[in-house]
Amino acid sequence: MKQYDVVGIGNAIVDVISTEHEDFIEELGLARGAMTLIDTERAVELYAAMGPGSETSGGSAANTMAGVASFGGTAGFIGKVRNDQLGEVFRHDIRALGVDFDVDGADEGPSTARCLIVVTPDAARTMSTYLGIAGHLHPEDIDTELASMAKVLYCEGYIWDVDITKEAIRKAIEATKAAGNKISFTLSDAFCVQRHHDEWLDLVDGTIDILFGNQTELAALTGTDDWDACVAAVQGKVEVACLTRSAEGSLIVTADERIFVPAAPVEKVVDTTGAGDLYAAGFLYGYTHGLDLATCGELASLAAAEVIGHLGARPLVNLAELAAPVLESRSSEPQV
Amino acid sequence: MKQYDVVGIGNAIVDVISTEHEDFIEELGLARGAMTLIDTERAVELYAAMGPGSETSGGSAANTMAGVASFGGTAGFIGKVRNDQLGEVFRHDIRALGVDFDVDGADEGPSTARCLIVVTPDAARTMSTYLGIAGHLHPEDIDTELASMAKVLYCEGYIWDVDITKEAIRKAIEATKAAGNKISFTLSDAFCVQRHHDEWLDLVDGTIDILFGNQTELAALTGTDDWDACVAAVQGKVEVACLTRSAEGSLIVTADERIFVPAAPVEKVVDTTGAGDLYAAGFLYGYTHGLDLATCGELASLAAAEVIGHLGARPLVNLAELAAPVLESRSSEPQV
Repeated sequence: MKQYDVVGIGNAIVDVISTEHEDFIEELGLARGAMTLIDTERAVELYAAMGPGSETSGGSAANTMAGVASFGGTAGFIGKVRNDQLGEVFRHDIRALGVDFDVDGADEGPSTARCLIVVTPDAARTMSTYLGIAGHLHPEDIDTELASMAKVLYCEGYIWDVDITKEAIRKAIEATKAAGNKISFTLSDAFCVQRHHDEWLDLVDGTIDILFGNQTELAALTGTDDWDACVAAVQGKVEVACLTRSAEGSLIVTADERIFVPAAPVEKVVDTTGAGDLYAAGFLYGYTHGLDLATCGELASLAAAEVIGHLGARPLVNLAELAAPVLESRSSEPQV
Repeated sequence: MKQYDVVGIGNAIVDVISTEHEDFIEELGLARGAMTLIDTERAVELYAAMGPGSETSGGSAANTMAGVASFGGTAGFIGKVRNDQLGEVFRHDIRALGVDFDVDGADEGPSTARCLIVVTPDAARTMSTYLGIAGHLHPEDIDTELASMAKVLYCEGYIWDVDITKEAIRKAIEATKAAGNKISFTLSDAFCVQRHHDEWLDLVDGTIDILFGNQTELAALTGTDDWDACVAAVQGKVEVACLTRSAEGSLIVTADERIFVPAAPVEKVVDTTGAGDLYAAGFLYGYTHGLDLATCGELASLAAAEVIGHLGARPLVNLAELAAPVLESRSSEPQV
């Protein structure tokens, strides 16, 4: 039976990216740096105000699966597109990377999800998501056999925003757990954490094996701005917590270890979209290949650095090639 | 009555760009560096073989109008999209730059045109165009009032490939001519020149005022590989011929002058898609603002250099800002 390194479940989204002046954020009343869900009317208004864009496949968990595949890992994706042009683009792009994506597209209903991403001169991204058909991922769309074949199931926090998709993700989690495999989860966005705070604290306590989150998300979850208190609040609750702090690097935390991982150098930060997604990709590739946690962290930082060096949330280079020097130096170290 | 600096007529296309290894061109049987028209079946086959792509608005004349608007000129566009997602993207992007584009989208028929662009490590682009609804631009889609308000009508050679669109463009040309305004024309592609050789020689002889072409296109038109013979063959036939030679710069030719314009420096050539289109934009902006031909050429080179420095066929920066130092230095020169 085929086994996957990672199967991701999340919103299948095409990103529409434009670069705008700093004032744009305020003029349009956007929540800087956050992800906001928008309806059709707001999507039309916002898109009309945006400059010329470029469209690339996105979606948080989908970006992570693209990254795992680019490292040479085996990956699958569960999410919902409509059978429209952007749905075709999404399906093409993720499959072109070797990620298995076989959820049927919808012949009717709202269109494929779009995320309107405004990148400002400080390289920050502000995201407005029109969920469309992505919010119609139903439990019957879940291939439980696929979920059970994943060494690690990767769950996107964003998907908690719709009741039916939450039901779908819970079904996938059960299938993976039943097969004795691991659950990883990303906190996605600080506002998203606030919306689902109590449920997610429950998940951290018993369901999640590998947790990903950045400083603001962790603060929202733990209710404290103090970094050490944040770290202490999750340490030991999950098998591994990967806690990121942008340019200040990240901390990989187990019950009895805290491993600091510096951020990898970037010549020029152009667009931070996808940084967390690709960090998770690097970590999960390493984790599912039995690498030590420090090396997992190094791959994570490397992938995050690649994706923030250009517009768009998926790697533009082959991550296996990018990671080769790291992996070679590790394998030549004396084994203890 | 409003007057436009330039109105362009051409295929309304969304580009799908992927970067591929050198071997891809041969494996897929593509004509390196050229533009080939493809049918649905071939489009499906080729797209399936391509890696993950990014979608940006394109189309030769549309790129030129985007460039004119980015320089601060007034521009309109005539072309056909379908009312589908890619049609919406095309319309949004060109309008976001301030280009007037009011041709009704089609509610039925084939989809919005797509150009599958493969960029190889040498930065060359090989284009396969699925024309779709763009090939259904009918004479009744031509707003003759708009065409007559253009100081210069800019015509894309590519549009000659379909009889009905050729009829449409001839109608636009007549309207512009009748208003006493100028006709500019780009030879587009050497194979395209071969397909319409005799008709285009006729156009050069009496219809076209401003001609754009590169070395291979000019060789196909004039039937000689000898550069000086090429130049001599068109000199004096049109008011101005802008003859480009990639990194070797260009020659601006009138009945009694040959002005050499060096190529503007580029740090790294990434993707040559749009080089000719943006060259034409710079020239036409200068020409419609009464600048001397050498300055027109300088703006042309500047715009071409910008667009080949990144993926995609439209400028990523404001060309008016980019051109400001050139225009300031010219205006401060002593007037004769």
